[in-house]
Amino acid sequence: MNFADRLLKAIEEKQNPSCAGLDPRIDDIPEELRKNAIEIHGNNFSAVSNAIIEFNRKIIDAVHDIVPAVKPNIALYECYGAEGMKAFVDTVHYAKKKGLIVIEDGKKNDIGSTAQAYAEGHLGVVTLADGSIAAAIDADAMTLNPYLGRDSLEPFVGVCKKRGKGIFILCKTSNPSSKDVQDINVGDSRVYEIVAKIIYELGYENEGNSGYSFVGAVVGATFPEQARKIRNILQKSIFLVPGYGAQGGTAKETIPCFNKDGYGAIINSSRDIIFAYKKMNKEFDEAARIAAEKMKEEINKAMRDAGICPW
Amino acid sequence: MNFADRLLKAIEEKQNPSCAGLDPRIDDIPEELRKNAIEIHGNNFSAVSNAIIEFNRKIIDAVHDIVPAVKPNIALYECYGAEGMKAFVDTVHYAKKKGLIVIEDGKKNDIGSTAQAYAEGHLGVVTLADGSIAAAIDADAMTLNPYLGRDSLEPFVGVCKKRGKGIFILCKTSNPSSKDVQDINVGDSRVYEIVAKIIYELGYENEGNSGYSFVGAVVGATFPEQARKIRNILQKSIFLVPGYGAQGGTAKETIPCFNKDGYGAIINSSRDIIFAYKKMNKEFDEAARIAAEKMKEEINKAMRDAGICPW
Repeated sequence: MNFADRLLKAIEEKQNPSCAGLDPRIDDIPEELRKNAIEIHGNNFSAVSNAIIEFNRKIIDAVHDIVPAVKPNIALYECYGAEGMKAFVDTVHYAKKKGLIVIEDGKKNDIGSTAQAYAEGHLGVVTLADGSIAAAIDADAMTLNPYLGRDSLEPFVGVCKKRGKGIFILCKTSNPSSKDVQDINVGDSRVYEIVAKIIYELGYENEGNSGYSFVGAVVGATFPEQARKIRNILQKSIFLVPGYGAQGGTAKETIPCFNKDGYGAIINSSRDIIFAYKKMNKEFDEAARIAAEKMKEEINKAMRDAGICPW
Repeated sequence: MNFADRLLKAIEEKQNPSCAGLDPRIDDIPEELRKNAIEIHGNNFSAVSNAIIEFNRKIIDAVHDIVPAVKPNIALYECYGAEGMKAFVDTVHYAKKKGLIVIEDGKKNDIGSTAQAYAEGHLGVVTLADGSIAAAIDADAMTLNPYLGRDSLEPFVGVCKKRGKGIFILCKTSNPSSKDVQDINVGDSRVYEIVAKIIYELGYENEGNSGYSFVGAVVGATFPEQARKIRNILQKSIFLVPGYGAQGGTAKETIPCFNKDGYGAIINSSRDIIFAYKKMNKEFDEAARIAAEKMKEEINKAMRDAGICPW
């Protein structure tokens, strides 16, 4: 099944175009979990890994019937080396088992056969030592960086087509310095608009029954005007929208990321969901559930206010 | 010690501005190593990981007195999940133990605190579950993607300054599609030249005693004309130069990447060194040694021909 169809179906079923970012910084994980992990594993990377696994599993249990997808950022796992990657792979597999769509955020890319290895390792299958194949990470989708150009993105398109997976290519990111390269003036347009055209070309004829393509774009909630321009170029792409909440983007500001049919975007929030317990007198998983519900309502309200709520 | 000083000292000591790319695709690793690993670990990711570890260690043993640095591309390890990362970390640590400088090629990046996590995990130290700190990957340098702009790169500069590490920011890459974004015309210049100016600014006042900065650039051997332009902008940056050999770049074409003093560039070759055994009737490590020696001679000859050989 085309990834876009899968994602939109999940969004529709949960009436919720939002996504929980699983970015588990060890310092922010409740002390009890950290202490337990040290007691069992010693004060090492294995304890970090196991504390993250326990934390994430409980967050996933708490939000899996609210959100259609989770977005673990692999940077926050691989910074702990091999043990961190263990926690990452566990998180991907556990979330999938719980029926969630997993969007791996890594903003990676490379060229030629190395891009192929990224695509196969993270979304497809790789070769074992005897030549047989196996899935390694097996995320549903991943974020990619377009600076290396089309030939660096094509291997991912190939694997997605074969395996029903998706990609979200950075177009206009949510950070202030996104202007440095992405906003460079090129005649009448900007670099991010040229990137949007590359995304369009890669997505062309890769649409599912929903009319949406498995080649999506990353567009920050903090730049609604730019989002509007990109939406015009990329009508058949799903936008993965970071920058909501902690980074300053409001629900209203995410509206230009949607199409008029109320589809076409999935809004991410990380810290405000998974570390919601810091601002509430609740258990961390209960707090995450409340925060995920709240975000769902906020986005739904903004969609209703804009007259684009599809349910 | 400033990373640039360390790298240039190693280049000078070995009279060799070249670097072995440790990109160990399992299919290309000699059958005997793969069979042994399966026998010991079973036909799983652990066997893949251990075959890679054994392969890399023997390659490192064979070339460590010839090349000043190795460049493992993390994509070719993380595609095997947590077990792959184990092989990556082992490779980094083993190469360092053998006196080599390790340039992690990952072409990654992210924003804000996530960039900070990448920097700390790959080059610096991270927090354990009790709040104490430990080094995870601890590479000497890493490659970064500039599409997210200055604020995504600054956390790396901070960690490098504190820990004597380095970064190489993608500027003009060696692949044909590098033109798609990097060559976009912006008035009289190109996007890669604007990126070069950002690299210049980040490197400014981060020079060591050698006069070179720990903020370097990735410039493909396949584009000598563009390399000349970037060299003019970035006189104090070391260029990490991919694209030599298998990708078509010749020794002569790498010359514009150097300054007139014969310093300022390190040329990488991956497949042509580590899988040299496929074209020779030799053991894989012996073949890698011969190939590394050959590359050293080729680059040295080209430098002598251009009148810039510093030794």
